[in-house]
Amino acid sequence: MKLTPEQQKEIRDQQSQENNTKRVTVKELEKILYEVIPILDHGFIRVIDYMGDDTSIVQAARVSYGKGTKKVSTDAGLIKYLMRHWHSTPFEMCEIKYHVKLPIFIARQWIRHRTANVNEYSARYSILDKEFYLPTSENLAAQSQSNRQGRGDILEGDTAKKVLDILKSDAERTYNNYEIMLNERYDGSKIDEYGTGLARELARMNLTLNTYTQWYWKTDLLNLMNFLRLRADHHAQYEIRAYADVMLDTLKKWVPITYDAFMDYRVGGIEVSLKGKEVIKKLIKGEKIDIDQSELSKREWNELMEALDLKDKLI
Amino acid sequence: MKLTPEQQKEIRDQQSQENNTKRVTVKELEKILYEVIPILDHGFIRVIDYMGDDTSIVQAARVSYGKGTKKVSTDAGLIKYLMRHWHSTPFEMCEIKYHVKLPIFIARQWIRHRTANVNEYSARYSILDKEFYLPTSENLAAQSQSNRQGRGDILEGDTAKKVLDILKSDAERTYNNYEIMLNERYDGSKIDEYGTGLARELARMNLTLNTYTQWYWKTDLLNLMNFLRLRADHHAQYEIRAYADVMLDTLKKWVPITYDAFMDYRVGGIEVSLKGKEVIKKLIKGEKIDIDQSELSKREWNELMEALDLKDKLI
Amino acid sequence: MKLTPEQQKEIRDQQSQENNTKRVTVKELEKILYEVIPILDHGFIRVIDYMGDDTSIVQAARVSYGKGTKKVSTDAGLIKYLMRHWHSTPFEMCEIKYHVKLPIFIARQWIRHRTANVNEYSARYSILDKEFYLPTSENLAAQSQSNRQGRGDILEGDTAKKVLDILKSDAERTYNNYEIMLNERYDGSKIDEYGTGLARELARMNLTLNTYTQWYWKTDLLNLMNFLRLRADHHAQYEIRAYADVMLDTLKKWVPITYDAFMDYRVGGIEVSLKGKEVIKKLIKGEKIDIDQSELSKREWNELMEALDLKDKLI
Amino acid sequence: MKLTPEQQKEIRDQQSQENNTKRVTVKELEKILYEVIPILDHGFIRVIDYMGDDTSIVQAARVSYGKGTKKVSTDAGLIKYLMRHWHSTPFEMCEIKYHVKLPIFIARQWIRHRTANVNEYSARYSILDKEFYLPTSENLAAQSQSNRQGRGDILEGDTAKKVLDILKSDAERTYNNYEIMLNERYDGSKIDEYGTGLARELARMNLTLNTYTQWYWKTDLLNLMNFLRLRADHHAQYEIRAYADVMLDTLKKWVPITYDAFMDYRVGGIEVSLKGKEVIKKLIKGEKIDIDQSELSKREWNELMEALDLKDKLI
Repeated sequence: MKLTPEQQKEIRDQQSQENNTKRVTVKELEKILYEVIPILDHGFIRVIDYMGDDTSIVQAARVSYGKGTKKVSTDAGLIKYLMRHWHSTPFEMCEIKYHVKLPIFIARQWIRHRTANVNEYSARYSILDKEFYLPTSENLAAQSQSNRQGRGDILEGDTAKKVLDILKSDAERTYNNYEIMLNERYDGSKIDEYGTGLARELARMNLTLNTYTQWYWKTDLLNLMNFLRLRADHHAQYEIRAYADVMLDTLKKWVPITYDAFMDYRVGGIEVSLKGKEVIKKLIKGEKIDIDQSELSKREWNELMEALDLKDKLI
Repeated sequence: MKLTPEQQKEIRDQQSQENNTKRVTVKELEKILYEVIPILDHGFIRVIDYMGDDTSIVQAARVSYGKGTKKVSTDAGLIKYLMRHWHSTPFEMCEIKYHVKLPIFIARQWIRHRTANVNEYSARYSILDKEFYLPTSENLAAQSQSNRQGRGDILEGDTAKKVLDILKSDAERTYNNYEIMLNERYDGSKIDEYGTGLARELARMNLTLNTYTQWYWKTDLLNLMNFLRLRADHHAQYEIRAYADVMLDTLKKWVPITYDAFMDYRVGGIEVSLKGKEVIKKLIKGEKIDIDQSELSKREWNELMEALDLKDKLI
Repeated sequence: MKLTPEQQKEIRDQQSQENNTKRVTVKELEKILYEVIPILDHGFIRVIDYMGDDTSIVQAARVSYGKGTKKVSTDAGLIKYLMRHWHSTPFEMCEIKYHVKLPIFIARQWIRHRTANVNEYSARYSILDKEFYLPTSENLAAQSQSNRQGRGDILEGDTAKKVLDILKSDAERTYNNYEIMLNERYDGSKIDEYGTGLARELARMNLTLNTYTQWYWKTDLLNLMNFLRLRADHHAQYEIRAYADVMLDTLKKWVPITYDAFMDYRVGGIEVSLKGKEVIKKLIKGEKIDIDQSELSKREWNELMEALDLKDKLI
Repeated sequence: MKLTPEQQKEIRDQQSQENNTKRVTVKELEKILYEVIPILDHGFIRVIDYMGDDTSIVQAARVSYGKGTKKVSTDAGLIKYLMRHWHSTPFEMCEIKYHVKLPIFIARQWIRHRTANVNEYSARYSILDKEFYLPTSENLAAQSQSNRQGRGDILEGDTAKKVLDILKSDAERTYNNYEIMLNERYDGSKIDEYGTGLARELARMNLTLNTYTQWYWKTDLLNLMNFLRLRADHHAQYEIRAYADVMLDTLKKWVPITYDAFMDYRVGGIEVSLKGKEVIKKLIKGEKIDIDQSELSKREWNELMEALDLKDKLI
């Protein structure tokens, strides 16, 4: 991830703003506003703007004339209560806006979260930069043998090298040809001597899915947490989790009370089915219970035992 | 609309905040932040928070590292272009939050705009204030004879008086009985001497639809304009238009360039159907055209002639 | 809930349709299509239309050319897996449409579920029927003393009678005045001898919140389940639960496999926080654990013990 | 676009269903249900399911007990009225589901329509087919010189050939390498002799953006029309317009009355700004008006003159 001097200046210009406002502000978040936080090899996240803080949730929940309640402890109690009982609307009262640079195949996962506002860099209108994602060796994993949509072992050195060579040379080749078709190649190679080159909206189809794109992405706090619950989870693909992890940090800076409740009730918690609940009841009573009586599938049984740290009961 | 001294103090406390921020701020909007803007007899609108300004639209449309473009004229040109071509996502990048007090029958119209975040005062949890909407005499209109969902002439003095008497006495009576059922009446009248009264979630059903409720309402700029296009229109019921008109003012203070484009392309513009277009073409050529040849309905014909100031062609 | 002979005929006409289709059909749901299922004193639910069945979920999850998988057991396994891991999009592939008659104060709760399509009977355009909700005596409950938004004991006979008298007479009085203001009263009472009466859009404000309204409500299966999870829950107000319970029955008829998974993983299951999980682990190990060590609030502690049938640990 | 014999059989099996239903059915749409309608070189659209017809719009708008009105002409009048006045909710009462095969770069445009339900073929879980989009020669256009996001002239034979060679060889090369990395290549080439190959979720990043993907896409009639208004427009990229055009045909078969109103009021109509309206008024009066007095931009002026067939006024 390299920024041009002009981009760096634009960022510094915005960071040097000192505006007065009667709106609530969050010091910890202001500190990193506009900052480029690098992710993967060329990606980043920048917090561009935000609305509200922890007190805004309380204020909206109470439909009050003033700002939250008087005491932080009361605010925290209410926020925990709202989180625990799945109240959704008060958390929609805060909003955040990010500038994100990410590989296209990750952008395609990300965009499935529909309750957000997005403005993506247009490759119909502009030319994409020559930047594509290449995994580091510790992230180059084999297909999992047990989970059809997961990763298994890290690839060995020689295999890893072969994979990286392919990814790199294919991305470079297709990008170079993209430039040639656009008549935009630095060395002067062109597709037609006197023309304007192929239309941008067509030329882009030659790029590989690890090409980086970028967008402005804005969402409310509730939907940000929904996004993070799924994307910071260990089932999520590593590359999107890398973004979610950084966003979790920004969440903590922005709304620390909500962050704590989120980690306790959502991220760290578990959901137990009716049948799973019966298993837990028997375990507490010290009664014998095995997978057959439980009516759980093998996968469910193991997930439950894992969550309860009962490794000896794994099957 | 009367505020308690405590509410007034809460508002003043928030208005006296002087926070520093690197975010963009809008001076004209800051001036009225938290202010109570009265609407109808007991209603109001307050701007509680906002995110972004005109430059944020440009910034997102360009997915840029800096703030909008350098020149205001370039920004204005782009915003007009986006508005004219129905680009939607850049306008979603600004957000505003209102605190609104409004009669329940208007709240029921308003809530149909689904792409907004709402926290309403809970009458399951709290007791509603004794405030209900009574129209002023110039707004007491008869049922229209031509338009099944519109208003006709203003009611005459005597009829108007009878209507107001009914509205007032029925609202007062049902509210008093609401208080009695809740064991909350100032004069000590109760429904049961030693009990807690009827559950709030039930007692509220006795209130009339002109009772005031209140909510926090937050939306992005695109959806605010969609709301205003429908609700500031002359087809809208007067009582919701009263709110929309005030919100139009806040729109102007907040994003003046967008406001101008909105007034030109949406509010002041007209939509012409394929058949309507053929009529216009003939009118320009000076050819004869009447309603039969036009295939327009009488209503459509008249709406078009009205829009084009051709009063003599009304039928 | 009384239907006019004309309404009954319209329903019978639709029920007598025998159309041929290549679309998937659900026999159990077809049996009750268009049927009026009474709820509360004047309300009802009717299933008007539906799209898809259990196999449609599987078909979409696999993006397949054919219909689901070959075996019902495989379909059931996949649906359970999707439900357990919060996959949402396959469940959005089924759609259902209801016609609902319900009191306005319940309609106001209901409409907060925004991801649905709604067409409500317009009281700007038409005149509402003289029907209002009066609770039966077993549903006339006092305000809860422990839970600010709940119900406590059933009201005693005399108090109950007084409440019902108020609700009934206020609703009748305001409705009669509504008719008078509209010049629509059967006995000829009018607000103005020669006029059209007050505009409908204004007159309606005199009605009480227990007046019945009706609407068409259409949603996808995922959002139906989100609705039912909240509204068929014991925290929900009785009057909306009455509707949710009937809708649960229609869910069972429509998509029986999904219904089972929903009851197991959502309705019958529990969510356990990170701290709650630690409590369960200690209980299973037979270690001593009390509320102080747990860091749970009293309410959370009791909810957990209740869920695990450990009544002796309630505090 | 080639289907395997198994896929063909699955389609025939579904088409041979003869189910009885009391729901409304649409004969013209039933005829093409499940049918593969080819688009571009390997893409297609299939109508998988639908809910409602023209009468459902009327039924919902009236919240009626029966089916639409008695007369087709009354239904048509109401539908035209609803369309003209931008009533949205009645059109949400019909739903349609498509199975679509399309190039990834088009899928990325398409997905920006958020108010739809989507299930995409998962390249984390499965292996994509070796199918990629190559434009026909009449669609191989140069970058427009006047419109930064449009196409200009068709490329000449030799240039076109060079472009096609690049697109084809790059897509094939990257696909072959995709197969090699997955250890799935027919000729036995592998990335590691004894392993499972690279994880699918990683290998896919080597594919080019013209690779075909597929999804189930379900939306209501209102949002389908919003999609078609933008995507069947001549500003839309040709490749997505090819899909929109086919979908317009299915719209016509499904809801012919709505289709007519849509073509008249949306597709064939024009939007005129406040300033544009003033120009039209002067043109009708025969007054002199030029671009300077109009305050329109050159582009706006020309668009208006074009729409009114006043070619001699183009500047």
